[in-house]
Order: sequence, then structure tokens, then C-alpha cells
Amino acid sequence: MVKAFEGVARQGKQDHMNVRSILSTKGAAVETVTAETSLGDAVATLRDRKIGALVVSRDGRHIDGILSERDVVMALAAHGASVLGRSVESAMSRSVVTCSADDSVESLMESMTVGRFRHMPVIDADGELCGIVSIGDVVKSRLNALQADNDALMDYLHQGR
Amino acid sequence: MVKAFEGVARQGKQDHMNVRSILSTKGAAVETVTAETSLGDAVATLRDRKIGALVVSRDGRHIDGILSERDVVMALAAHGASVLGRSVESAMSRSVVTCSADDSVESLMESMTVGRFRHMPVIDADGELCGIVSIGDVVKSRLNALQADNDALMDYLHQGR
Repeated sequence: MVKAFEGVARQGKQDHMNVRSILSTKGAAVETVTAETSLGDAVATLRDRKIGALVVSRDGRHIDGILSERDVVMALAAHGASVLGRSVESAMSRSVVTCSADDSVESLMESMTVGRFRHMPVIDADGELCGIVSIGDVVKSRLNALQADNDALMDYLHQGR
Repeated sequence: MVKAFEGVARQGKQDHMNVRSILSTKGAAVETVTAETSLGDAVATLRDRKIGALVVSRDGRHIDGILSERDVVMALAAHGASVLGRSVESAMSRSVVTCSADDSVESLMESMTVGRFRHMPVIDADGELCGIVSIGDVVKSRLNALQADNDALMDYLHQGR
């Protein structure tokens, strides 16, 4: 019985939900801007694409920084009305925590909680950008995993009767 | 054995993690502004308090709206440099989804995923503001629950050997 349950637990979605499974649903597209872009243009892109962060990249492959809604609000607080004419470079976060497609959703939860950020670019083996995962994607994935685990557990309990 | 495991599952933290347990860690304090506050002042408060949203309230008890970093960025995109002199009322979200202290963390995950928002004010039986939970709080709580569940499951499996 213990062995049987270990099998169920191992099959449980919680154990193999990783970044790849999130990207397979949402796709690998990442909205990027260059560091020289004006914050006015960057803010228009955030609005038009209905997203919460832009990866800053000179070529769409290498990561120079990340610009989140929080970075924009902080720049607005610091510089006031002049903010729209300033560059993305002046407001972006330069130290970007990235993840790989093989990382577990749980490890992302930990990184986001410890670092207090909400977006993680995904890089491939060559260090090139291949996706982005938001805290909203993480929560959605956990919700799906919970449902799958509940289903698996109920199946197992009913088999045992 | 099935009965025994059902007991373990029921004791698992996932089942009784609720909004109250989050508030017991982070406290019930909620930063509020009035609708007439300027966005300039509101943005300074977001920065100074290191928070991502303000509840809009005339008296600190009733909810008139919510102002998130996203709302500020959207107002900046719409109104440009004049945004700082505008009122919180002009940028806030008026339809606010709230929760109660008894709600499960899982139900918050669902509401936030479906509604695509990141902050939920908590109201008491009288409909008065008694806390706020962010998507970051939710993720942190899930992480703690996962750890507790793993510990409980490991204990159970080792007892069974």
C-alpha cells in the first residue's frame, strides 16, 4: 500500500510541473525593448500587450535588464512628469534572476518569494531568451496541479475501498 | 490504511490554509488613500511603503476602489505627464473583488487567476476592511503548505514501513 501510494504521489502533477509545462501552454514569445527606448514607448507597449513586464534586450536573445510595472512606478515617483522622455535603461532592473525550462514551479515560487519579483525570463542552454513566466502563470499552474492531485488522490482512495 | 491516509490528508496544511492564516503572519494593517488624493502622492506612498496597491477609502473602513501599480501605469499611458496632478479616483479600479478571512487560499488563487489581479482586500462580517492579501502572499503561503504536506507525507510513509 505504501509502495502503491508512493507511485500515485510520484505521478501527481505537483512533481513534474516545471517551467516547460507552463511555456507549452502560454508559448515562448517574449516582448522585448531596447535600453534606448523611451519609457513613454515602453509604457504604451505594456498597455497594448496587456503585460506586466518587458525584457530589455539589444537583439531579442540576450538579456540586458527587465522593466516591470513596479520599475515604472518607482521611476515616476523619482522623476515625476519627465519620466516619459527618459530611457528604459534609466528605470530597468539590471540584475535579472532567470530560470531554465527544466526548473520546477516550486523553485520559481521560492525565487519570486525571496526576491520579491513577479517575472522571470527563461533562458536556454546557450543563455538565450526562450520565454518568460509571471507570478500569475505560476499561480495558475499550481491551481491546475492541485486539481490534478486531488483527482489522483480521490481515484486512489476509491480503488482502496 | 485508507482511513489513516485520509486523516493525514485532512491534517495536511493545504486543507486549512486560509486568508486568516496569511493575515496572522503579515498583520491586518492596510494602507489606504482617499479618492481625492493626487496620483503624485499615491505613487510616493506606494514607493515609501514598498507595496503594490492602495485601498481607496474615505474612512479606512469602507472600500471605494483599489489603486494598483498597473492602474498607475495605465493612467500614465493614457494621460502622460499630467498624470501626477490627477486624482486617485480617475485611475482606480472601482469594481473590487474582496474576500473574507475564512476563504481558502485556493479560492483566492482561482479569483486572482480568473480576474487577472494581484491584490484582494479582506472584509469582515460587517463589510469593513480588515486586511489585504497580495498574490505574493498567496504564493508564499502555498510554498509553506507544500513544505508542511511533504513533511506530513514523509512521516506517514515512514510510519508505514
